[in-house]
Amino acid sequence: MDFTRYLRTFPNFPKKGILFYDISPLIGNGEVFQAAIDEMYTLTRHLSPTKIVAAEARGFLFGPPLALRFSIGVVPIRKSGKLPGVTISASCSLEYGQDILHMQADALSQNDRVLIVDDVLATGGTVTAMKDLVLRAGASIVGCVMLIELSALRGREKLCDIPTYTLLQV
Amino acid sequence: MDFTRYLRTFPNFPKKGILFYDISPLIGNGEVFQAAIDEMYTLTRHLSPTKIVAAEARGFLFGPPLALRFSIGVVPIRKSGKLPGVTISASCSLEYGQDILHMQADALSQNDRVLIVDDVLATGGTVTAMKDLVLRAGASIVGCVMLIELSALRGREKLCDIPTYTLLQV
Repeated sequence: MDFTRYLRTFPNFPKKGILFYDISPLIGNGEVFQAAIDEMYTLTRHLSPTKIVAAEARGFLFGPPLALRFSIGVVPIRKSGKLPGVTISASCSLEYGQDILHMQADALSQNDRVLIVDDVLATGGTVTAMKDLVLRAGASIVGCVMLIELSALRGREKLCDIPTYTLLQV
Repeated sequence: MDFTRYLRTFPNFPKKGILFYDISPLIGNGEVFQAAIDEMYTLTRHLSPTKIVAAEARGFLFGPPLALRFSIGVVPIRKSGKLPGVTISASCSLEYGQDILHMQADALSQNDRVLIVDDVLATGGTVTAMKDLVLRAGASIVGCVMLIELSALRGREKLCDIPTYTLLQV
């Protein structure tokens, strides 16, 4: 399916110079949204993940449906002050701004094979921080899958050691 | 299924006096997470919704899987500065703090029958703001479904005109 038909672009959002890809039309159409989750599944099923890891907020739109497609659980990565209990944290530089991401320290086991899911692969800042958290928790990473790859930002180069799949490249 | 076994409580998080229900063990188990989505579907399928509306961030963990269970789309409600294009907004008072919530102005049509989904029904502040946004967009609301109802906070009283379903009451 040509998913680009279900994306809208907004120049200079949220900051001047950024071209924002709006996924609302895609997730707002049940058939297209299901097709995107199915394609993520088809691209990554050979990796046999045992856990999906996804970051708030837009990663939560894709991580849970993909986890259920695999019949596995999902581990949330959140910003500071959002997750209770003991957490581990990593800072990340984004296409616009900086953030600190947290994961609960007991969320993964050493046997877990993690598939990282997100909406967009931009500079790779978020995924690099997520990768850091997963590895520090003692689990292994089997791959990454994102809906959209902003090729010009070369985030894929930061993930050279991890099989990385994207549904569309712009 | 007794979902309480898959929740953890944290006293005084994120603020003193708040007992926080952590859903991580529930969504971290694929079988239990699927059972929760299936039960949400069973409780609300007679409402025949055409769109799910869910608010960031934890509402995004349940809204999209339920939308796909219904084969319908999901409309995201987000905090200020996160959604591109023209938005409508509503302020809401929460169990702890205040927020302004936004929805894209063109996200719903007048024919849409909306099912509001969230993780927790606490004071009902978030749902009341979501309800306001949906009605102002010209759509109708057929029901609400949440995983956990904090009965002592009496949020259900704010939703007396909307069929409201919760998987567990604490």
